[in-house]
Amino acid sequence: MQVYVGPEPASVILKVMSPHMSPEEFRAAAHQTVDWIADYLRDVRRYPVTPKVEPGVLAERLPAQGPEHGEPIEKILADFRELIVPGVTHWNHPRFFGYFSISGSGPGILGEMLAAALNVNHMLWKTGPSATELEQVSLGWLRQWLGLPEQFFGMIHDTASTAGLHAVIAAREAAGQPDAPLVLYTSEHANLSIDRAALAAGIGRGNIRHIPVDDEFRMRPEALAAAIKADLDAGRKPFCVVPTLGTTSSSSLDPLPEIGAIAQRHNLWLHVDAAYAGPAAVLEEYRHILAGAELADSIVVNPHKWLFTPVDLSALYTRRPEVFRQALSLEQAPAYLQAAGSASAVNFSDYSVALGRRFRALKLWFVLRYFGRQGIAEILRGHIRMAREFAAGVSADSRFELAAPVLFSLVCFRLRASDDQNRQLLERVNATGAAFLSGTTLRGKFVLRLAIGNIATNDNDVAQTWELIRSTAASIS
Amino acid sequence: MQVYVGPEPASVILKVMSPHMSPEEFRAAAHQTVDWIADYLRDVRRYPVTPKVEPGVLAERLPAQGPEHGEPIEKILADFRELIVPGVTHWNHPRFFGYFSISGSGPGILGEMLAAALNVNHMLWKTGPSATELEQVSLGWLRQWLGLPEQFFGMIHDTASTAGLHAVIAAREAAGQPDAPLVLYTSEHANLSIDRAALAAGIGRGNIRHIPVDDEFRMRPEALAAAIKADLDAGRKPFCVVPTLGTTSSSSLDPLPEIGAIAQRHNLWLHVDAAYAGPAAVLEEYRHILAGAELADSIVVNPHKWLFTPVDLSALYTRRPEVFRQALSLEQAPAYLQAAGSASAVNFSDYSVALGRRFRALKLWFVLRYFGRQGIAEILRGHIRMAREFAAGVSADSRFELAAPVLFSLVCFRLRASDDQNRQLLERVNATGAAFLSGTTLRGKFVLRLAIGNIATNDNDVAQTWELIRSTAASIS
Repeated sequence: MQVYVGPEPASVILKVMSPHMSPEEFRAAAHQTVDWIADYLRDVRRYPVTPKVEPGVLAERLPAQGPEHGEPIEKILADFRELIVPGVTHWNHPRFFGYFSISGSGPGILGEMLAAALNVNHMLWKTGPSATELEQVSLGWLRQWLGLPEQFFGMIHDTASTAGLHAVIAAREAAGQPDAPLVLYTSEHANLSIDRAALAAGIGRGNIRHIPVDDEFRMRPEALAAAIKADLDAGRKPFCVVPTLGTTSSSSLDPLPEIGAIAQRHNLWLHVDAAYAGPAAVLEEYRHILAGAELADSIVVNPHKWLFTPVDLSALYTRRPEVFRQALSLEQAPAYLQAAGSASAVNFSDYSVALGRRFRALKLWFVLRYFGRQGIAEILRGHIRMAREFAAGVSADSRFELAAPVLFSLVCFRLRASDDQNRQLLERVNATGAAFLSGTTLRGKFVLRLAIGNIATNDNDVAQTWELIRSTAASIS
Repeated sequence: MQVYVGPEPASVILKVMSPHMSPEEFRAAAHQTVDWIADYLRDVRRYPVTPKVEPGVLAERLPAQGPEHGEPIEKILADFRELIVPGVTHWNHPRFFGYFSISGSGPGILGEMLAAALNVNHMLWKTGPSATELEQVSLGWLRQWLGLPEQFFGMIHDTASTAGLHAVIAAREAAGQPDAPLVLYTSEHANLSIDRAALAAGIGRGNIRHIPVDDEFRMRPEALAAAIKADLDAGRKPFCVVPTLGTTSSSSLDPLPEIGAIAQRHNLWLHVDAAYAGPAAVLEEYRHILAGAELADSIVVNPHKWLFTPVDLSALYTRRPEVFRQALSLEQAPAYLQAAGSASAVNFSDYSVALGRRFRALKLWFVLRYFGRQGIAEILRGHIRMAREFAAGVSADSRFELAAPVLFSLVCFRLRASDDQNRQLLERVNATGAAFLSGTTLRGKFVLRLAIGNIATNDNDVAQTWELIRSTAASIS
């Protein structure tokens, strides 16, 4: 069905037809789209991982004004392929090894398709019973797989950043309203989102402490204890500590049991950022990394990072949901929501700043069911094994050195050479388009990071990337 | 391809196959899924708008533990149809008239499918050149259609709540660090998300002022001025005012020019919540509702509300992006992002708490192109016309009365009877499953709200719903 573009008055047209895409037009366009997606997933290795484009080039190719009249869907899909895809950084490429390589999966895409079609907004149980209960059920499954305490309440946020913001807000609420300034503690290797969350919640820059790390980039508990003591002595009010399981630079693990004990001693809110490494606890042999998590007031784990769920889906668990609710509660629910309330069901929007909520649980449920716990465990084990084999290659080549312990699927390494030479190596490898790595600084030196997280990455991808790095290194002077 | 469930060691299996859903298995399942979606969109009128389910029933039907081994996708899709869909509140139903009826559309679903498949995270320009630039371009088109100033910087958030939180954080930053407590002003009819945003940002409950409204539910500028004066006299620091264009209860318009002038006089951050009514400014004859928006420091408009874009997509515009950036800036970008920075491009994550970002612009671009400005205008005009015709019916029936001016596509009305009788009417109408309305309180009385926003709603849907309301009213004693 065509969009109305003629001169007749709108009212006449609207009486006789609904001017939207008909189900049959959608069906045809969506089948085409599915074929493109399946081809893309099959052929993704043929694309350069990162595009060769300069800022502003795509914007210049698109019209500066939006279209006055509707355009055929075929034209839009063609422009998607010809204008948009060439400027995509392919996070989906099996040789995307940058940051924390994230990964969707076929079942996750199917879940997103259905969520977009249903377009549910489950701000209240009543406005989305299935969405609300599937969020509870699927997060319950994941909680069990991670070995977290049964009483932990789970809810979905878009990102670990937003989840962390809510944790800091809850921590601030739990601290009451002391006259003294509130102080938050995290490690110097914590993700920037912790600082952002604290800033957003009104904790001043001067009241965020970055506790030093040890030789393996783990927060030093005795330094934490000393910092708390110094703040108490100065009349400030410590209120929250955020250890990380799987830091962004090196995937290090802060010592949760010790930090948890300090948090308990000083009555601090303990928020655990396990966004990256948390999913590893699905493996029995890695369950121990969550030891101490039972002490947490809140903990975040990202299925969209290393659990094959398309962005965005971050799982926040807390044993104190009532504090989140209280922190954001109004004196009285507004009239337009009161009428819809249900006393016996969870209304997730009571626990978050965002009132509207997408049906994100659907994709997680598809992923958890399609793979099962053992299926996910096998894939994660494969990633960890490939990372270790890559690290063994690094160790065996005297030109290179490992820059951090390989705990999960991240390998930090460097040429035994200058920072400039290491930066050159990274840039040249990435410029090939055959693989993508990112960099960071550890112990004051620039290092390369190879993070394995894509569901389709195989031994050959890692082996060829190592060959590419070695041969590129030979050209660095 | 089957998920591995046998007893062989994982390493052997992983050497020979990648245990994820193959592109061909995805293709087959996705074609099935598309057919289900197209059938659903075609047949959505056959579903009850709201399901007859009690809290907990779905959760009880699902296993308490997640599956140990993977399950066939056919079984998951069958369970979706048989267990999940019967518990869905169909926001997609053309007779969903509750809250602000939101609406996706065929092109929007296609955009979501592709975004899920690409799985881009454009935290930096470099990690998603297309996603970054398409966000700039599509928000630029929308900005032009709304007649907002060219220098307004646009970015996408999940919801207007989150956008509002960022506005309050920016307002707090702009206010510096006064010794006096900061005070925020909004109307007694503002959305609860404004209060939530202020609470999240650390503005105490005692420092949020709900300015009284006039007879047509518009914030009273003289009451705002008086409240500001009282706070100044008491030594507090007014810092932010949030007028609403299209309040949730009645779709009223706060007088933006007058409020903007007061904001300028007192140097308050002016954040305009135009989440619902903003899209109406795409129509020339409604352009005037944004008069005064040029004074705004920030303004939010929700394409996922009344612009046929699947949830979630909220557009935040600001003429002071540097304040948002400064409010969340760290002393130094972390090492793992520094290496990836690009001086000449926008990195959207600099402006938001959330570091990770979905490729949301894709669905908006599909929608804006498929319908074009005039196509969207025709649909909106149709909704407004149908609302007026419904209101005319209400006015012509002596048992009923209108409870608020009909400015857009929302009609607030009530039986000339008790609140209990009006609540009964609402409950009985909704219990039929043939339509869904919500309620609110205006001038102390309970009223029904009929909000038209679904792209497929037609005259017949509205006429039959009015007949249902009339006949149900006859049974109310």
